[in-house]
Amino acid sequence: MKSDCSPVVVRPTPDSLAGARPVSIANVSLKDGFWSSRIGRIASHTIPKMDEMNASTHRYDNFRVASGELDGSFQGIYYNDSDVYKFLECAAWSLVHFPDEALEARVDQIVEWLEAAQDDDGYLDTFYQAQDAGERWTQFRHHEMYCAGHLIQAAVAYHRARGKRRLLDVAIRFADHIGEVFNADGNPGVDTHPEIEMALVELYRETGDLRYLEQAGYFVDARGRHEIDVIDGTQFDQEYHQNRVPFRELERMEGHVVRMLYLTCGATDVYTETRDENLREVLDRLWHNMANCHLYVTGGLGARYSTEGFGRDYCLPNRDAYAETCASVASIMWNWRLLLLDTDRRYADLIELTLYNGLLSGVSLDGERFFYVNPLEDDGGHRRKDWFDCACCPSNVSRTLASLPGYFYTIRNDACYMHLYDSNRVSMTLGNGQALRLDVTTVYPWEGRIDIAVESDGAFALCLRIPAWAGDGWHCSVNADAVEGGLLEKGYLRLERKWSAGDRVSLRFDMPVRVLRAHPLVTENAGRAALARGPVIYCFEAVDNAGSDTERLLLDTDPSRFERVPGGVDGATTIRAAGRRLSLAEWGDALYSEAGPSAEASSGPLTLAATPYYTWANREPGTMNVWMRTLNSVCGRRR
Amino acid sequence: MKSDCSPVVVRPTPDSLAGARPVSIANVSLKDGFWSSRIGRIASHTIPKMDEMNASTHRYDNFRVASGELDGSFQGIYYNDSDVYKFLECAAWSLVHFPDEALEARVDQIVEWLEAAQDDDGYLDTFYQAQDAGERWTQFRHHEMYCAGHLIQAAVAYHRARGKRRLLDVAIRFADHIGEVFNADGNPGVDTHPEIEMALVELYRETGDLRYLEQAGYFVDARGRHEIDVIDGTQFDQEYHQNRVPFRELERMEGHVVRMLYLTCGATDVYTETRDENLREVLDRLWHNMANCHLYVTGGLGARYSTEGFGRDYCLPNRDAYAETCASVASIMWNWRLLLLDTDRRYADLIELTLYNGLLSGVSLDGERFFYVNPLEDDGGHRRKDWFDCACCPSNVSRTLASLPGYFYTIRNDACYMHLYDSNRVSMTLGNGQALRLDVTTVYPWEGRIDIAVESDGAFALCLRIPAWAGDGWHCSVNADAVEGGLLEKGYLRLERKWSAGDRVSLRFDMPVRVLRAHPLVTENAGRAALARGPVIYCFEAVDNAGSDTERLLLDTDPSRFERVPGGVDGATTIRAAGRRLSLAEWGDALYSEAGPSAEASSGPLTLAATPYYTWANREPGTMNVWMRTLNSVCGRRR
Repeated sequence: MKSDCSPVVVRPTPDSLAGARPVSIANVSLKDGFWSSRIGRIASHTIPKMDEMNASTHRYDNFRVASGELDGSFQGIYYNDSDVYKFLECAAWSLVHFPDEALEARVDQIVEWLEAAQDDDGYLDTFYQAQDAGERWTQFRHHEMYCAGHLIQAAVAYHRARGKRRLLDVAIRFADHIGEVFNADGNPGVDTHPEIEMALVELYRETGDLRYLEQAGYFVDARGRHEIDVIDGTQFDQEYHQNRVPFRELERMEGHVVRMLYLTCGATDVYTETRDENLREVLDRLWHNMANCHLYVTGGLGARYSTEGFGRDYCLPNRDAYAETCASVASIMWNWRLLLLDTDRRYADLIELTLYNGLLSGVSLDGERFFYVNPLEDDGGHRRKDWFDCACCPSNVSRTLASLPGYFYTIRNDACYMHLYDSNRVSMTLGNGQALRLDVTTVYPWEGRIDIAVESDGAFALCLRIPAWAGDGWHCSVNADAVEGGLLEKGYLRLERKWSAGDRVSLRFDMPVRVLRAHPLVTENAGRAALARGPVIYCFEAVDNAGSDTERLLLDTDPSRFERVPGGVDGATTIRAAGRRLSLAEWGDALYSEAGPSAEASSGPLTLAATPYYTWANREPGTMNVWMRTLNSVCGRRR
Repeated sequence: MKSDCSPVVVRPTPDSLAGARPVSIANVSLKDGFWSSRIGRIASHTIPKMDEMNASTHRYDNFRVASGELDGSFQGIYYNDSDVYKFLECAAWSLVHFPDEALEARVDQIVEWLEAAQDDDGYLDTFYQAQDAGERWTQFRHHEMYCAGHLIQAAVAYHRARGKRRLLDVAIRFADHIGEVFNADGNPGVDTHPEIEMALVELYRETGDLRYLEQAGYFVDARGRHEIDVIDGTQFDQEYHQNRVPFRELERMEGHVVRMLYLTCGATDVYTETRDENLREVLDRLWHNMANCHLYVTGGLGARYSTEGFGRDYCLPNRDAYAETCASVASIMWNWRLLLLDTDRRYADLIELTLYNGLLSGVSLDGERFFYVNPLEDDGGHRRKDWFDCACCPSNVSRTLASLPGYFYTIRNDACYMHLYDSNRVSMTLGNGQALRLDVTTVYPWEGRIDIAVESDGAFALCLRIPAWAGDGWHCSVNADAVEGGLLEKGYLRLERKWSAGDRVSLRFDMPVRVLRAHPLVTENAGRAALARGPVIYCFEAVDNAGSDTERLLLDTDPSRFERVPGGVDGATTIRAAGRRLSLAEWGDALYSEAGPSAEASSGPLTLAATPYYTWANREPGTMNVWMRTLNSVCGRRR
């Protein structure tokens, strides 16, 4: 097993040493904690479920038809090959911690099918091979390169995870073919769905072959230079495809969210390896636009249902939120790449927020059902599904969770950075050759205490992320000596000393219930508040609130009225709050009235209950709200 | 010229005498007032413009190709014939008050083209005739019956307006053909766009041929019984086409707004002539759902951009409002039909609201440019256009305005009802044979005084609408004797007496600036207010507010701070108000914050200026808001 077994590898060239490097998934062993059972469920439930769905929906058979093994023709949506590839990637990461001979044999069987389906020139896309062989590379909305990108990512993952290169060779042949077809002198097309860019950089990292990095850079800059052939009368225009202007001219996030974010991932990978500073400026301004103008409080992204797209700045509807599960995956991927460049907590904070909320909501507690769309308000009709015709989200959330331990730590020359807190044991070798082992114990995110046992001797720095949500409410001690007034470096507490095995670090965050307000230009949330505790965003479900329509509940935001209650659904800490119910009796039926601010709280005080957003829609259907009307937005405001 | 020259005629059968009857357009002569110059501009500017656009976009030539006069094939969108028919209808009504030999000759020329294009069996639709003759009546989304309906309406209008029946005969032949093809034993199809229903009822009224009434009833009840062949993967589903369930089972307004409203118009016409009480219940509940849950404060309808459709109850986004001009037309048509059934001011109030706001905004002050979509908030990018590929709105708003005097009055046996107030002279004969003439003088809606000179002797009732917006703020006198405590009958003040020529009635409404609030379940308008005066809804444009982003202005809703300023754009009375500007300095960049209600008003008080909504986007582009943040929604609310 290779030691750089991570979703993203940064090659240790002199330049990229300026940044951080990941710690292999293989080096992080989860202990009992928040993530262990969830990631275990991916292995035990989600992977068998996805395998079964791929089989029963002809997704595997498309390859067997393409190779001639089966008669018939392509079935399903043109990009369905990508679901097989993402399944393979997920299986590869899962096998690192959950060895499973039957699963590995299954993967090898599927790899055989792929290999057999591949054309002699390296081309592999069953939508064309199994029906219109002559039409390949003519309709870039058919996502041949998007599928190729996922093939490459799967191949790299399986090579890193299990050391097998048969799939990698398939991927290399396809990548070489793409390089022959698409270049400045050849076909100027770009796939309407970015993905190939980051895959090619990873293939460069895995093989050392610079052509792939150059090809990725070519694709990033090829966008916006030729019109994509769009379907007239639809909203799927050049902007939707990030093809309105060249990438470097973009001022804000635009178009289809997942496409936009996959493109920024690819561009960040290219920057990481090339240090083309103009690209960095673009990435910075796009990140700020995303974080300051488009981010749901859950970490979700995508305000436009009809285009799966970014809305206008500050346009963040709750009920009509799109916040696709794949967008949360993509945001985590992008922030991880930025964090490798610049160890600033703002990236890790956003990974954490997205992970516990907008991403985790994408999969049911039992690991077998999925959300494609993750709204912040619902009438009870939105429920997770077994599968989708467009099944991008299940395998995407699963490959992310299966590789999650790879996102916990990064290293630099003399420092270990801890980004995500969960119970685990980890070993790593810093850039300077210092080996170190840590044993971390915590029930985070339900409580704020994290105990770190150092198991190595040596002089190095332990750098602990102090999340922005903690404010000044954090405390750290080393061997029971309080760390006083440690200045944070971009949000990380740097504990630099000569460590001895047996040293113990204790980090503690205060975890009060926080009352969040949205920027005044977010019209939908005027007069509303959302509750958070630590990295967890809460919501109010009818099932916890006596079946009430949660849209009509009024939250008392007085902090003294909150109570934490452990042991809720899925072991979560829930929140009790005081409130009342909106009464419309006085208002009547009229849609408009001169009566002045109008609604009244009902007479009786109520106890409201909130559950973590990621747990919603796992029990009886009913209304759900993240952003609650506040008591003081209604009462005492008559003119 | 026939005396029942109105867009809707109710046949004076014993049954329908229970309702009211319209007064012919021909009997109402506009004097100088709000509407005279606007309707004059339809004749002088809009009609020539539409004629030119129909000619230059091959809309006329499609008929000449279909007849074989020209070579070539159909050009444009499949329902473009309807634009020609609506132009003819508009021209017909306009000719009543603006005789124009050249225009009438033009109409006759076009009628010749239509007649020549009609097939021997009565079929007439150039989309099929000029390219796919064999495919007729196979794709109901291609709107052959929708076009037929507009043909019939144009033919009836021209017959009523000018007494010419050549076009009526074309329409009758087409209607007969439709009756042969579509019936319980024949083709069960229904057009995906209702329109034929109300047209057939009007054809019944014009010809007395009961078959057309029966055919209309058949079409109303045929919906929802066979699936319409929709395009997969689009939002244009059975609900969009009012085909989810049979019409009588509908609980709320649903699907495409204009389609839904045209269907309710047709169903109301069928009810008016058949008195099928079950149908009346359906219409009542749909009207209440529309008025209480879907109506923009401008009278606009349609909250869903992607489907041109109704949203959920209380879902009324401002910036993303659709509020299609055609939907305002359709709402006026429906409310007029209901008003003929039941002289209740709620219908006339809604006609008035829609007319002065959501409909009139659809056409520029110069009469030559048009809005398809009428949002209640804009960043300055939404501007009226010369024309549209789908050009339904220009001719729709124009035919409505050209026939507007026909909406002013209705009569019953012994009473004249005045619904809309403008300067005009009118003559009519009541159901009991009493002839009467009135001369009305007013500068409504800028001032609330209406002077009515009675020019006939006789015993009859004058029933004056007291709009709901007036509340108790109205005053009436007859020959200077105050009318005291007159009880209103469904909102109408009934002045019943023996009148003498020379009697003078003076009606006066107080017209304070009214501060409107939206129902608490309209999330978008939380903490916001809109201004109205009389029937006119106001908006704030950047051009009147020193170029400020009007979304950031804070309105002081203290009524003592409003000032009326006559002589604004288009002669409108504008409103000055006090306010401040939202400052975000303290909030910073963060999208979410624990800071508590947060934004502050800027230090300096400002004078804000509002202009009638219908006048917006006629000057320099800039932001526009109808619903303004209020000063007290922001200030003094820190936790």
